[in-house]
Amino acid sequence: MEKSFLQIARAAYQPKLPKALQGPVKAKEGAPTQSVGNQEEIKAEFPNTYGMPVIEFVEGEAQQLPPYNVGVILSGGQAPGGHNVISGLFDGIKTLNPDSKLYGFILGPGGLVDHNYMELTADIIDEYRNTGGFDIIGSGRTKLEEIEQFEKGIEILRKLDIKALVIIGGDDSNTNACVLAEYYAAKKYGVQVIGCPKTIDGDLKNEQIETSFGFDTACKTYSELIGNIQRDCNSARKYWHFIKLMGRSASHIALECALQCQPNICLVSEEVEQKAMSLDEVVTYIATAVAKRAEQGNNFGTVLIPEGLIEFIPAIKKLIAELNDVLATDEAKTVERSEQIDFVRRSISAENLAVFNSLPAEVAAQLALDRDPHGNVQVSLIETEKLLSKMVADKLAAWKAEGKYVGKFAAQHHFFGYEGRCAAPSNYDADYCYSLGFNASRLIANGKTGYMSIIKNTTAPAAEWIAGGVPITMMMNMERRNGKNKPVIRKALVELDGAPFRYFAAHRDEWAEKTEYVYPGPIQYFGPTEVCDQPTCTLKLEQNK
Amino acid sequence: MEKSFLQIARAAYQPKLPKALQGPVKAKEGAPTQSVGNQEEIKAEFPNTYGMPVIEFVEGEAQQLPPYNVGVILSGGQAPGGHNVISGLFDGIKTLNPDSKLYGFILGPGGLVDHNYMELTADIIDEYRNTGGFDIIGSGRTKLEEIEQFEKGIEILRKLDIKALVIIGGDDSNTNACVLAEYYAAKKYGVQVIGCPKTIDGDLKNEQIETSFGFDTACKTYSELIGNIQRDCNSARKYWHFIKLMGRSASHIALECALQCQPNICLVSEEVEQKAMSLDEVVTYIATAVAKRAEQGNNFGTVLIPEGLIEFIPAIKKLIAELNDVLATDEAKTVERSEQIDFVRRSISAENLAVFNSLPAEVAAQLALDRDPHGNVQVSLIETEKLLSKMVADKLAAWKAEGKYVGKFAAQHHFFGYEGRCAAPSNYDADYCYSLGFNASRLIANGKTGYMSIIKNTTAPAAEWIAGGVPITMMMNMERRNGKNKPVIRKALVELDGAPFRYFAAHRDEWAEKTEYVYPGPIQYFGPTEVCDQPTCTLKLEQNK
Repeated sequence: MEKSFLQIARAAYQPKLPKALQGPVKAKEGAPTQSVGNQEEIKAEFPNTYGMPVIEFVEGEAQQLPPYNVGVILSGGQAPGGHNVISGLFDGIKTLNPDSKLYGFILGPGGLVDHNYMELTADIIDEYRNTGGFDIIGSGRTKLEEIEQFEKGIEILRKLDIKALVIIGGDDSNTNACVLAEYYAAKKYGVQVIGCPKTIDGDLKNEQIETSFGFDTACKTYSELIGNIQRDCNSARKYWHFIKLMGRSASHIALECALQCQPNICLVSEEVEQKAMSLDEVVTYIATAVAKRAEQGNNFGTVLIPEGLIEFIPAIKKLIAELNDVLATDEAKTVERSEQIDFVRRSISAENLAVFNSLPAEVAAQLALDRDPHGNVQVSLIETEKLLSKMVADKLAAWKAEGKYVGKFAAQHHFFGYEGRCAAPSNYDADYCYSLGFNASRLIANGKTGYMSIIKNTTAPAAEWIAGGVPITMMMNMERRNGKNKPVIRKALVELDGAPFRYFAAHRDEWAEKTEYVYPGPIQYFGPTEVCDQPTCTLKLEQNK
Repeated sequence: MEKSFLQIARAAYQPKLPKALQGPVKAKEGAPTQSVGNQEEIKAEFPNTYGMPVIEFVEGEAQQLPPYNVGVILSGGQAPGGHNVISGLFDGIKTLNPDSKLYGFILGPGGLVDHNYMELTADIIDEYRNTGGFDIIGSGRTKLEEIEQFEKGIEILRKLDIKALVIIGGDDSNTNACVLAEYYAAKKYGVQVIGCPKTIDGDLKNEQIETSFGFDTACKTYSELIGNIQRDCNSARKYWHFIKLMGRSASHIALECALQCQPNICLVSEEVEQKAMSLDEVVTYIATAVAKRAEQGNNFGTVLIPEGLIEFIPAIKKLIAELNDVLATDEAKTVERSEQIDFVRRSISAENLAVFNSLPAEVAAQLALDRDPHGNVQVSLIETEKLLSKMVADKLAAWKAEGKYVGKFAAQHHFFGYEGRCAAPSNYDADYCYSLGFNASRLIANGKTGYMSIIKNTTAPAAEWIAGGVPITMMMNMERRNGKNKPVIRKALVELDGAPFRYFAAHRDEWAEKTEYVYPGPIQYFGPTEVCDQPTCTLKLEQNK
């Protein structure tokens, strides 16, 4: 494997650990916990893993454990730092007993079910320290939900003498980790299950979890690019750049990038939904800002757009829901492709027809014609950044005809997602992830199951970070999924009364009108600490730092 | 202006200078020079600026000059380091006489003609040291070609008592700088004109100029992103990423990124042209590699595509030429939009019709329908990355039906350009640009005009760099432009017998088949020198380092 100079230099980086994890630990246990909602129902679903205390690790006596094999799984989309969770876990179990082994299940949870695994030895681990990606064992999207899967899993776990399984994933994967923990506990299979909070989207956080790993690095990578584009924008002074950012459910990434870069406009899906804005209102909002800047001779700017925006516009959401129903009928299946748009127009309600007709022709055609394998409208294929810039251009042209706008409007489009999911972790993520993994080994050594590894106080220097565990059930409530009530970890959307959004809302009018771009530049690993070790703006504002 | 932590830290960076420029200099002059081609014609066009010697600066006696005002212009597309050329120039003229003033003309050469300028004082310069972008004075694409413009220019130069003008630009801008130098010399206006080699495209280089500034930083920024995508690609193992890279004329950027990242495939326009490949042959080349990787179970990969590729495919070039002719006829102007595709089919030659019909419907429609303001086909609007992936998908589907391919093919698309043109300059570009600007002040002090500022030996440590000047006429030949023979600096395309391409060609089959990705990571400014101060692979290979 040929390595870049940065990779070689970075391999030598020793991630920082909280002080408590630098030596022997003992678990300081809090009071019994309750789930955040539906307590009776959650308790009934998790009789063996409900109500356990929150744990904090503090200095303790030296422990020497018998060899204790551990398995690890990467679940879902890539996030910077996954390799460091694994190397932290590896180092952690080896400090407890050098004969303990770490096994990685290949290509996600499917590797457990299909008995596809590899031993992760020191040689392999060393190749991946402080690197991005999940390529050490690969990841996958198989959901661990069925008893049959759990039983297939226990076969291989027994065969490899694995006593604990660490699942690195997002909200759904951690929910499933807890279901698995409960099942193995109920069956007295003697296998512990520990979760780790991963996702670049930043939507796995709550009172207990400060942030999910990867969010820091991904946002910094996108902000580097947005800053570069803004500098270009401000030099050439002739384009509006419409920049879509990954994140279907929550707008944390867009908001964080806005806080870092101060673009002219940033849309926040949660606000669009809460205000029940129509697509035309969103377009008018952007066009108004464009027109206002044009009055000052500034025919350029930047617009950040969360990937999931379109599904948060209530009218579009309703239209899509009806399209999914209408196109699933037997009648729809007999309609020729060339007749499909007319069929849709005939079949949907007057209210939705008005919305459908307001869309640019290509988008309407795509909604009516393209289906995913389940027969659903493919919302993710819609190029929201182009849809919006086209509609803004049309609106500005209309205003120009009315004499309400004098300016030039030309747009460039960007979509950033894959560019940041596998970036080499920032110092923050490298340290945070290594600590999460190392800490997981301490939860295992303390006999815990159904816990998530947590590290808190991360806006302070790493030595002051607080390590511990939180029962996964504590973060759960019941939600409706596919027509059934299910216990799940509540997804954290952007809170409109939270400090990050409030800071943004207090500044956005000024940012829209003036040109107050900030250029964060690329992630630095070796420079002054204020350059290399900043947490996200979101975290600093949330913690009032 | 709110600044990022990196900007603040980076403001303190003192760019390195060649040893010769660290103290007083004298000019060591070589023999009279000749242009690279059409010597008699070039000499006739440039009687006052032809045949001058190449200059190298060596240690000399301390000089104190009278105040000597200088003007500076940024011309054309942004490139990282432009601000450092200006700060080097500023520091250079101030060391010769602190009362000398530097004026910037606003928004490119148009600022000279329209008398739109600002004085660049120390306060302003300090805000822009080591930053990306051209926003200090803006850039523009006005071409300085007409005597009327030169005369408008001399008015403001006289008014501001400017004795020398530095034009920072690409091949065309430097050609025009020389025409201006010749004109002012012929008229004895007493204004020197000096050029600086700028362009991220890397196509302004020759025996005298090692590289144009900005190429280093832009390629490193794109390579960071390509590396991240490759890591994702190798973790998720389910997509082929088609990545288009800026650069209409030359493929230096794509080639350099390939050398840095080792993607599965990189197309090089110059090779496609030289081999007279058809679009189908290009598609077959990619599809063959995809199929070969699929045989090993690897349904993922990366393809780098130079922006200008499609215009280098001889058959497409011919088609576009005929389309431009056919659609410019009076008859064409009477044709309804809905009839235009049929009109094109009726009007073009059988050979071009076959090519036209082989294109995906959307691309054919775009070629037939969308014109630029001059009535030409808008080649730049063609999304080559999507065109190619669509055609590869179609070919693979056909092969699958024939039983020649068993695999899955899904593609993601990217286009990088604006992401890198205004990145903060790498140490290399920061030092190189500062040296180019500082050196320009020494060319001015030595009374030179019609010279380009050059810095050589840049694969060695900066102290060993060689500073000097080269007569712009030396790099010229006559070329046909808009139906006329014109003296121009020859554009440097990728040489298929040059070391960078040969290295690539020797490795590409292995890179295509295996997965040998390299992940360069983000540009580092503060770390170990082997991480922070590497020149491009292109330059190292060219200089056999």
